[in-house]
Amino acid sequence: MVEDSFVDERLLKKVPRWRNYLAAKLGFRNHWYPIMFSRELGENEVVSRKLMGEDILLKRIDGKVHAIRDRCLHRGVKFSEKVECYTRNTVTCWYHGFTYRWEDGTLCDIIASPNTPIIGKKAIHSYPVQEAKGLVFVFVGDADYEPHPLSQDVPPTFLDDTMEVHGSSYMVQSNWRLGCENGIDDLHIYLHRQSPLVPNTQRSLPLGHTDRPVDFFELHEEQGQPKGVSTRTFKDAAPMAYEGRVEGKIVVTGTKMHQTPEEAAKKRTTGHYICMPGVLRVDNFPFVGRFQFEWYVPITEDSHLYIITIGKPCANDEERAEHEHEFWHRWKPVSLEGFNNEDVFAREALQPFYEHDQNWLEETLVTEDNGIIMWRELCHRNGPSVQKPSDII
Amino acid sequence: MVEDSFVDERLLKKVPRWRNYLAAKLGFRNHWYPIMFSRELGENEVVSRKLMGEDILLKRIDGKVHAIRDRCLHRGVKFSEKVECYTRNTVTCWYHGFTYRWEDGTLCDIIASPNTPIIGKKAIHSYPVQEAKGLVFVFVGDADYEPHPLSQDVPPTFLDDTMEVHGSSYMVQSNWRLGCENGIDDLHIYLHRQSPLVPNTQRSLPLGHTDRPVDFFELHEEQGQPKGVSTRTFKDAAPMAYEGRVEGKIVVTGTKMHQTPEEAAKKRTTGHYICMPGVLRVDNFPFVGRFQFEWYVPITEDSHLYIITIGKPCANDEERAEHEHEFWHRWKPVSLEGFNNEDVFAREALQPFYEHDQNWLEETLVTEDNGIIMWRELCHRNGPSVQKPSDII
Amino acid sequence: MVEDSFVDERLLKKVPRWRNYLAAKLGFRNHWYPIMFSRELGENEVVSRKLMGEDILLKRIDGKVHAIRDRCLHRGVKFSEKVECYTRNTVTCWYHGFTYRWEDGTLCDIIASPNTPIIGKKAIHSYPVQEAKGLVFVFVGDADYEPHPLSQDVPPTFLDDTMEVHGSSYMVQSNWRLGCENGIDDLHIYLHRQSPLVPNTQRSLPLGHTDRPVDFFELHEEQGQPKGVSTRTFKDAAPMAYEGRVEGKIVVTGTKMHQTPEEAAKKRTTGHYICMPGVLRVDNFPFVGRFQFEWYVPITEDSHLYIITIGKPCANDEERAEHEHEFWHRWKPVSLEGFNNEDVFAREALQPFYEHDQNWLEETLVTEDNGIIMWRELCHRNGPSVQKPSDII
Repeated sequence: MVEDSFVDERLLKKVPRWRNYLAAKLGFRNHWYPIMFSRELGENEVVSRKLMGEDILLKRIDGKVHAIRDRCLHRGVKFSEKVECYTRNTVTCWYHGFTYRWEDGTLCDIIASPNTPIIGKKAIHSYPVQEAKGLVFVFVGDADYEPHPLSQDVPPTFLDDTMEVHGSSYMVQSNWRLGCENGIDDLHIYLHRQSPLVPNTQRSLPLGHTDRPVDFFELHEEQGQPKGVSTRTFKDAAPMAYEGRVEGKIVVTGTKMHQTPEEAAKKRTTGHYICMPGVLRVDNFPFVGRFQFEWYVPITEDSHLYIITIGKPCANDEERAEHEHEFWHRWKPVSLEGFNNEDVFAREALQPFYEHDQNWLEETLVTEDNGIIMWRELCHRNGPSVQKPSDII
Repeated sequence: MVEDSFVDERLLKKVPRWRNYLAAKLGFRNHWYPIMFSRELGENEVVSRKLMGEDILLKRIDGKVHAIRDRCLHRGVKFSEKVECYTRNTVTCWYHGFTYRWEDGTLCDIIASPNTPIIGKKAIHSYPVQEAKGLVFVFVGDADYEPHPLSQDVPPTFLDDTMEVHGSSYMVQSNWRLGCENGIDDLHIYLHRQSPLVPNTQRSLPLGHTDRPVDFFELHEEQGQPKGVSTRTFKDAAPMAYEGRVEGKIVVTGTKMHQTPEEAAKKRTTGHYICMPGVLRVDNFPFVGRFQFEWYVPITEDSHLYIITIGKPCANDEERAEHEHEFWHRWKPVSLEGFNNEDVFAREALQPFYEHDQNWLEETLVTEDNGIIMWRELCHRNGPSVQKPSDII
Repeated sequence: MVEDSFVDERLLKKVPRWRNYLAAKLGFRNHWYPIMFSRELGENEVVSRKLMGEDILLKRIDGKVHAIRDRCLHRGVKFSEKVECYTRNTVTCWYHGFTYRWEDGTLCDIIASPNTPIIGKKAIHSYPVQEAKGLVFVFVGDADYEPHPLSQDVPPTFLDDTMEVHGSSYMVQSNWRLGCENGIDDLHIYLHRQSPLVPNTQRSLPLGHTDRPVDFFELHEEQGQPKGVSTRTFKDAAPMAYEGRVEGKIVVTGTKMHQTPEEAAKKRTTGHYICMPGVLRVDNFPFVGRFQFEWYVPITEDSHLYIITIGKPCANDEERAEHEHEFWHRWKPVSLEGFNNEDVFAREALQPFYEHDQNWLEETLVTEDNGIIMWRELCHRNGPSVQKPSDII
């Protein structure tokens, strides 16, 4: 990949307002990404995970998680092919005994060549790591970029002290951007009309939306804040479609609960907030008083890790225990694997079209897709650090 | 695929007399192609088939077959991932409820966004469809090209009223052009010398041909007629080889039935006629009085649908019933799956060589292959509308 | 592959001192390569093998092995799809009966077209073949290059009359150059520290080496001799590392047998000699008095045939029988499949890194890897005839 871009320059030129987004097949650097749940990495355990095309080796030492590139400086083999840890604080390559410190990646010893001058002078890339709300976040960044606080890379309220979060993750066979775009797509609710979540929660679910105000979406680009797009709350102002017509006849209906059709057509209880590097908050979902936080983490060009969490502000241990129980016994089967599996189906169905880069210019977006365009342009403005082939290979 | 050709321009330049043919890895547009047998699509049934790289969705309504591109205008997903037909005359995309008319592809409704301005103003590509002799033909053409009659895309006699046709189809793992070239290749008869068809029909089968007259093949390029190449009938003039010699010794012999060697060497009962877009008629095959009509339909770059039919002029129901019975109980096992399977073997063996485009310049054709060259040049002259990457992606 | 190089010119330019080596993904032409063991090809047997990307058909006739390109001149199919040999001295293509002489590849007959003018005027490529020490060597060369003696393509002593050789071969999923570089890599001995060969032979095995003299390696580039790199023998001068330290503490130790630590640290009994086109001799391995000769034969871009042989100078039949027995019952299980399987593991672990051509510029070699650099530069100087895409396709 001598040109060092995943996408042909001639195509990028055609979308000047979102060229960085089109180029970002493997995401944007200089951001915090969740790589796994904290519960998946025990003390002294070593695991290898791919993130944005980079192989990363993680170990938990004295409770703290460390992350280094899973690739020996010397000849590029993966440590994880055969993990050797002679001391708690180091990992040794199985091939020639190159030994690195977990702390900072320093090459501290070479067993097969103990007097080599480069010892102590070279280091493998080590990634800043932070744990929050049961997730392990890794900062994939450039050498000259000082990591910003995690709070700039998650939607507001996620880090609130009272927010109790539980979740699960799924590997999806589509590019991460298709995850984002399906997530913020207002119209795809049609897809979910027969979801088991609807009878379970006894909530209304329209088939779509109509006549949204032009300023329905709000941009967030303040310095030091998450960069994102959210829906405004328009009480009595965002009509919904509950009746689906084909050639003038009603052929399908949405679900209206405990309300007159007029009420149902106007009341909107959910809303969303997506921010870079690809994380969405859905308010009052899967039920009133809950917040779904979900990530679309780039893994390879054609797969992303779909991390779904449900947060609920809790005042005490009893509420926390109740929320935890509800997550595992209600939301995971009914919402994550009932409702959100339909989203996974859709994203994987989008992949054969969008995997051809030129097809990003062949889609036919409608007025109601303006939130998607706002998101693309926001990423372009705020994401100059596109992950490039040379970052991976 | 920014250059919009399946084959490198530098190679195409080297074959100025058949460059369109070399470029036509996925066939020629503006032609009728059989996509399936009529019997494979019942009333109200919906199926998806690939043709020349395009995914096509078909439905039979009131007996008439309709065909549209199997790809939603909006975001490119395939309708066939989850078929939804709320009315007989429409198909609805499972993702956002984009609804199209089977008749002409018009976007007539969007269930999730009923007031969007593009409704009624856009259409998905719809393909002209015609059924004949138990096959469903689809016209893959450019927007500004008015479909010509089917009779220009099939060999003479196929559409004759008295012609009774039965057939079967097979997917072959080779490019469609290798199907054509094997079909019209006079010398490959050597391959069939041990075919079960020979004892079954008690007909002669030589090992090859020798000393053919220079005007053995005839071109057909009249306006309004099928564009093709056929063999002339040269009674007593096209000697055949029944004895195979290696280093002067006879090592293998063909099959001569009920005739003196002199008769056998001269009498030729079969002949062939190939025309665009890749369909062959073989006369007096698999037996005297029958016509084999076979198509090599481009599916992907490295596969084609091999449709084999056997036609026989029939005067009445009794003859038709007899021919139908004979097709299923004699020709299908003995000829299609006995004899023609050997052709399938050969085409798939050609693929590893010809899949490298530059190898089309590395072959060593002999004088007797002149029919193949005539075919390539005919396709070049009559096939400017090469299927391109942008037609597919 | 219009540019006719496996590696991008812009990368090749960056390594002017070993560019031919970087380009030689499929090896160097104009060399003798072992393609199989003699025992694998019986009298009148016909087999097809891939070598440097070329398909080669071999037959043994009256004890002598002949080799021709396994690809018919006419339309490129492989003879080996369906082998037909009507006479001992010829092979006939199953498709149209093109018949070639094993001796020199001449097209001597075409069964399906016996009078075609090209008969006797064309020939398929035939490869010079030579058998030695139980191996079949094939010369892959250019038309205008007269094959040099086999003795220039094997390490000294291999062809000695007294040298008794036995061996076995393994297909390895890595490029052939990774086989060479692992073979001559002095430091990778660390990888073998727990090999079953160590207790079996009761020999010392250090963890690595330290403070080698600068002239430790010797170049061989004399006219008419094998082109290679060997280790000099430095009695009492090449200290070895038996104690592996991490952060100052001993964490792993090598194996020292029957000697004081001082003796063990200095005595080096093994040495190696690698020469083009990729064959290594290891002296006193797997035991004193034996020589391991091993080849890394390019097959595809990402696989090589690893041929391991063990030679021992033998004075009489008794010694030869003893060596043969020892090979099959001791060295094959304990050394080839005990010790060398660890090398196979390493080479296959190198492949994901080095299969990206640009990563050859991203490695971090240490001083002790200078033998590898010498090898690359030697191949560059002596290997102008890089195998190119046009040689294969």
